[in-house]
Amino acid sequence: MTRDEITAAHLRIAPHVHRTPVMAARLGGFALRFKFEHCQITGSFKARGAFNTLLSRRVPAAGVVAASGGNHGAAVARAAVALGHRAHVFVPEYAGPAKIALIRATGADLTVVPGAYQDAADAARAHEAATGAMQVHPYDAPETVAGQGTCFREWDEQGLDADTVLIAVGGGGLIAGALSWWGGARKVVAVEPALAPTLHAALAAGGPVDVDVGGIAANALGARRIGAIAFDLARAAGVESVLVGDEAIAAAQRALWDNLRQFVEPAGATALAALLSGAYVPAPDERVAVLLCGANPAPGPFG
Amino acid sequence: MTRDEITAAHLRIAPHVHRTPVMAARLGGFALRFKFEHCQITGSFKARGAFNTLLSRRVPAAGVVAASGGNHGAAVARAAVALGHRAHVFVPEYAGPAKIALIRATGADLTVVPGAYQDAADAARAHEAATGAMQVHPYDAPETVAGQGTCFREWDEQGLDADTVLIAVGGGGLIAGALSWWGGARKVVAVEPALAPTLHAALAAGGPVDVDVGGIAANALGARRIGAIAFDLARAAGVESVLVGDEAIAAAQRALWDNLRQFVEPAGATALAALLSGAYVPAPDERVAVLLCGANPAPGPFG
Repeated sequence: MTRDEITAAHLRIAPHVHRTPVMAARLGGFALRFKFEHCQITGSFKARGAFNTLLSRRVPAAGVVAASGGNHGAAVARAAVALGHRAHVFVPEYAGPAKIALIRATGADLTVVPGAYQDAADAARAHEAATGAMQVHPYDAPETVAGQGTCFREWDEQGLDADTVLIAVGGGGLIAGALSWWGGARKVVAVEPALAPTLHAALAAGGPVDVDVGGIAANALGARRIGAIAFDLARAAGVESVLVGDEAIAAAQRALWDNLRQFVEPAGATALAALLSGAYVPAPDERVAVLLCGANPAPGPFG
Repeated sequence: MTRDEITAAHLRIAPHVHRTPVMAARLGGFALRFKFEHCQITGSFKARGAFNTLLSRRVPAAGVVAASGGNHGAAVARAAVALGHRAHVFVPEYAGPAKIALIRATGADLTVVPGAYQDAADAARAHEAATGAMQVHPYDAPETVAGQGTCFREWDEQGLDADTVLIAVGGGGLIAGALSWWGGARKVVAVEPALAPTLHAALAAGGPVDVDVGGIAANALGARRIGAIAFDLARAAGVESVLVGDEAIAAAQRALWDNLRQFVEPAGATALAALLSGAYVPAPDERVAVLLCGANPAPGPFG
């Protein structure tokens, strides 16, 4: 993945996605730089990868298909409908009512699958085989990673002055985008729920492995294993994976509301949780940035 | 009020308040520029005027006193505590549990007064007379207006490219700040709830008059009459006051969540409501900006 590919993705998706705001603010005793990527279309960074995928590949008449804990599915559904394609999204029940309603509102076809994410993924693959629809991978595909990378290109354009950027990790599409864009130019720190430690387990095992996933961020960060693209980039860059508990995530979620009036979902607060809980301790002169990546909480403010 | 006074206020309060983010986004068919002033300390622009007042006047040992529908009281309380002063805030019951809890959390003294805003204002004046505490006026004082004006100075610094700026009006401190900063450089449009039309009624009557106030934004925009500073500036500038109904305000509040994941209070969505409801129709080439001014909804996302 080259920076030119991310720039190409930016040019492709710019008419369709938001340029999300940035803000510098003190929070919990830290002077931080935030990017409000949760203000993105469909409430998460996933819109970037979804639009880039649909705009850079030939979409068959059968349209696209995706399996998702919710945010990726909403992004694919919205992008497909916006671009005039059919879409069928398969979500596990634990995606929850807010994310399911968000997908339904796009007008895309939606199937709620009993069981775990893997069951939804199996159903999506069966749909692909039966119809010829194109799979849009939530994280481990070059078009997805290039799309997510545009978030960090944009942050640079907005004048990011940080040594270190904290990013929540599930399947790894977002951090893969960051590592592809920045190379070694900034230190990237992965933050994962202790109950969904895909990258942490992979780094310990020397390669992607299945992990048990659970906890309050599971429907967004609950991939069973880290993507190969993200793992290879993270290992090569020597990325550290910091683990945070559900209580720390909930406290960070609350702190974002109390201090900045941003109501994010647990996954969206996970990166900040590493700082507020002391799981990541920056050096005194280290300039730290935090990406807020999603805001489809359940319940949302309107149910 | 000169621009130099607003610049002086900016220098005074900058260490204490947030530089709030800006965002360009399409919403409801309009290409809009937003400023997320609801991300401000204590969730509204009121922190600017409160800090400026406390930093530019000698605060007596008895501290400060304020009457407020909630946002101003929270701002005064926070500023006073941050600067080491005593504070006593009087709020009417209709301020609601979220704003009352916000004030209580600052550690300032708080009295919830049965009845209307006027009863809280009377109680605050009695406290002032009894203790010698300094009144901090919510809108009709030069230090308050200069503080609110810093919001627009900041927006200019952030590269605002708009012909017209829509601003919600209650007592008029915010719009007075905008008119003081911009003079005739940008068109400023006042947006008021139809159920709290202080400026609208004053412009019709040729001077500030008492109006009945109610509706979903009353605890933020429910001043009984427009401030004299704001009225004089608005009349001189030929400001138009656009009225919006509570349904339009609620729809705009919902649209801000659905499109930008910003959860503001009704007052914070009032300016946008003028566009989405068709109460204000911009010219085809008119570049329009919307200030989101407050986010202390009740209930909040955490109760």
